[in-house]
This record gives sequence, C-alpha cells and structure tokens, in this order.
Amino acid sequence: MSDGPAAKRLKADDAYKLTYWPGLPGRGEPIRLLFEEAGVDFEDGAQTAEAVPQVLAQIDTANLGDEHNAPPLAPPVLQHGDLLISQTPNILMYLAPKLGLGPPASSDDLYRLNALVLTVFDGLCNEIHDCHHPICTSLYYEDQKPEALRRSISFVTSRLPKYLEYFDRVIRANKQRDVANADQPWLFGPSLTYADLVLFQCLDGTQHQFTKAMTALQDAGQYEQVFALYAAVKARPRIAAYLASERRVPYGLGVYRHYDELDVLPEKKKEEKKD
Amino acid sequence: MSDGPAAKRLKADDAYKLTYWPGLPGRGEPIRLLFEEAGVDFEDGAQTAEAVPQVLAQIDTANLGDEHNAPPLAPPVLQHGDLLISQTPNILMYLAPKLGLGPPASSDDLYRLNALVLTVFDGLCNEIHDCHHPICTSLYYEDQKPEALRRSISFVTSRLPKYLEYFDRVIRANKQRDVANADQPWLFGPSLTYADLVLFQCLDGTQHQFTKAMTALQDAGQYEQVFALYAAVKARPRIAAYLASERRVPYGLGVYRHYDELDVLPEKKKEEKKD
Repeated sequence: MSDGPAAKRLKADDAYKLTYWPGLPGRGEPIRLLFEEAGVDFEDGAQTAEAVPQVLAQIDTANLGDEHNAPPLAPPVLQHGDLLISQTPNILMYLAPKLGLGPPASSDDLYRLNALVLTVFDGLCNEIHDCHHPICTSLYYEDQKPEALRRSISFVTSRLPKYLEYFDRVIRANKQRDVANADQPWLFGPSLTYADLVLFQCLDGTQHQFTKAMTALQDAGQYEQVFALYAAVKARPRIAAYLASERRVPYGLGVYRHYDELDVLPEKKKEEKKD
Repeated sequence: MSDGPAAKRLKADDAYKLTYWPGLPGRGEPIRLLFEEAGVDFEDGAQTAEAVPQVLAQIDTANLGDEHNAPPLAPPVLQHGDLLISQTPNILMYLAPKLGLGPPASSDDLYRLNALVLTVFDGLCNEIHDCHHPICTSLYYEDQKPEALRRSISFVTSRLPKYLEYFDRVIRANKQRDVANADQPWLFGPSLTYADLVLFQCLDGTQHQFTKAMTALQDAGQYEQVFALYAAVKARPRIAAYLASERRVPYGLGVYRHYDELDVLPEKKKEEKKD
C-alpha cells in the first residue's frame, strides 16, 4: 500500500459512519440522539439508498472483518477511522467522551454511566422487545401472540414499575449527592450526559408500545423524576429540532412496536414475585 | 471527617470487593474468572456469612447510593476504592485493563473486545436465561413451563447455531488477521483476553442447560474453533485449579439451569427465520 497523499487522506478520514436498517429507529436511534445533541455531523447509512446492502454486507456470514476489526453480528455498526464496532451501549460509550456527552474514556465516572445505560437497555429496551417476541426473535409476532400477551401483562405489572422506580431513585440520589444542583433533572452529575439521552429514547419507545400503562402512571403522578427527565431532554433545542424533522423515523416494526392487543394495563393483583 | 491516618488508610484501600448472591455462579462468575486467571486477590462477598444481607442492602429500594455512586439495581456489584459499579459487562470492562486481561482503558481495542463480550452475553447468557423464564423473571419457572419448552426448542434450533457460527467465525477472522499467531485459539489478538474467559463461562453454562444439543454439535465436529477455545481456557493452569476447587460453585437455580424437559435437540425442519 502506498504511503502517499491518498493513503494519508484515508487515514485522516475521521468521519463517523453509522450502518443500520432503514425505516425504523431501533437500536440505532440512541446513537443518532448523541450526534444530534452534540451538533456533530455523521453519515447515517440508513438515510441512503445503499442502507440495506450496507447492513447485509456487515452481517454476511462470509464477513471475516478486516485487518483491524472482527466482523459484527448485527447492526448498528459504527465506523470511525480504522475502528469498526457494534453493540449500541458499546458505540455510545465510545462516542460519549468524544462528543462532550460523557467524562473522559478512562475515568471512573464513565463506568458509573455505563452501568446506568446497560440497565436502561436491559429493562426498557430488551425486555420490551421480548414482550412481542417472547419465544423467538426468529419467529413472527403472529406466531407467538398468546405468549406475547401474557408477557406484556407481566411486564407492565411487575417489571415496568421496578425499572421506573429505580431510575426515579437514581435521579433523586443524584440531587441528594449534589445539593447545589438539585434543580437539575439528570441521572448522574450536574449536567446532561449520554445516559439521559438513552433513558429518554427508551422511555419514548416504552410509551409507544405501552401507551396506556405509561399514560396511567404519568397521570397518577408516579415516577415524576423520570417523566421530568423525559420532558427536559425533549425540550433541548437540538433534540426538539431533530424530533420535528424528517430525520426522526416513525417506530414501525422495530424494537418498540405498538400492537393494540398488547397495549395493556397492569393486573390489579400483582403476580407473585420471585427474584 | 478527619483527615488523619485512619481516613488515609481507608482511601488507600484498593481491595476489589464483589457483592453477589451466594450458592450459584450466575452473573458473578465471569468476574471471578478474571481474578482467578490474573492471580489477583479479591473479596468474594458470596463466600461470607454476610452474603445475602450485603446483596439486600445494595438492592434495597431505600438505597440512594453514596457521595460518589448511584445505587445499583441488581448484583453483581464491584467496589474498588471510592468506585461502586454494577452490570457484569461493565465490571469486566473496568477490570480487564487493570488485571492485564485487556488493552488500556482508552484504547480502541477495548471497545472491539467489549462488542464481543456484549454479544456473548446477549446470545449465550440472556437469551438462555429467558429459555426457562420466557414470560417473566418475576414468576417461577413452574408457572411458565409450556412457554419455556417452546422457547428452548426455538433457541437450540435457530439461535444457538447463529451465535456459535458467529464466534467460530470471529476466531477464524482473528487467525487470518494475524497469520504469525494462527495457532492460537483466541477471539481477538495474539493472546488470551477477558473476552475469552467470558465466552468460556457462557459456553460452560450453555452446556449445563442444553447438554444434549451442545454435545451433539461437538460430536458432529461443528464449530470446532469455539470448542477449541473452550478447551484452551479450561486448560489454563489457574483456571483448571479454580474449577477443581471448592470456590467453583455448582449451577443450581441461577442464570443457567438444567431441566431435563428443556434439554432438547434442534427441530429437524428449521422454523422460518425472520430477522
């Protein structure tokens, strides 16, 4: 390979490039929110005509990666210079310090934030996806409807309150830790971080899938710290502009899905808890 | 608070302390494997008489964390000096550079490894846990047995091969990337990393839960890179000594569970795939 100007130009190419399915926000959306809030340009492969072939090339079982990187199993995939990485929480943790939405890469606080982010994804993304796909991701929803209904009722009855109570408490703990900034609504520290953007997006998706349960909780004044954080992120000028733009894609058949028959309310008598 | 010798001693206390449920390996086990392979001491709360109260104190809904840390939602929890963090992949990513089982904290390679680790947990831990708890973690297995059987059959038929093929390919890609080290069995780079320990532990758990399916695959000579990595980790002197010791806890009612009725073989005709 030449060491001339062309090679140099390639090396200096520090554009961020996201590869993801087109037509649904999915697991790519939290990544987009970071770029939008930071006001940093990125190439969104999902917005191009090549979106599907780009994803298929990455997940092809013949893909052996390249001289620097292992192949990814699934999108989203972020390319940045020589680096190619997958897994949403991983991409977010890589980006946050670079975009001014998190502490430096080797700081303890980044691991404090990553714990929160992984917990948001566990409870308000992965568990919710499995409400419409409890038996197998490889089957259609229509092939697992009775199980999906049962899981959805269990989720809004016992799991959703558990997670919302937790994030409400994390925000209250943050206010208590930093009394001088007790009027700020964030999860950790005195200013917005990428963890707040992630919680916003996952609450938004939860609201899309379980509209009745989430509306009932908000109307009842429960988890008010959580709903205040949601509103505060939504009101950020760059986020508000993004949400109003055509770049924000409707939910469709992604991680979060609205099926009327799964939009259930909690059971009155809670199912017995175990672990 | 005094700034005298006592406070200083506390500050200099760099012991690693793990808080986790006693009596099952669970999500604490990959963390233990890192310490064992590194030969670094740690306090394993699960081995003490205070194990359960320690966990309950951390997950109490009255816990607001401390002056440095948010409260965790669930164990495992790692304490190291002032830092207290939860979430297994997060704890592992924090520890790996410090224990010599991963590249430096701010290096791109750590994010390359973290992508692999998160994918191992997705496929060979979380999806497998949900095979015995497809409807709700808060219900007993006995309350979701038909769904668990259906999910287990789907898992070994369509998901297990997908993940094993992927990790087999990642190892082959690593050999191809580094021809000089093509005889090493690892996922990424020329020597063992924490990602290899994680894959080992999750394969071991998968073998425990789906003994028939895993044995059939190995006997058929499939995914031989994956099984070679498993054997190579198992033969590491410190890992072998640990596995033979009383510190290694039997599986029991943790993430990986052996129920004879769920120890199924793949369906001959694969269920139609979707995403």
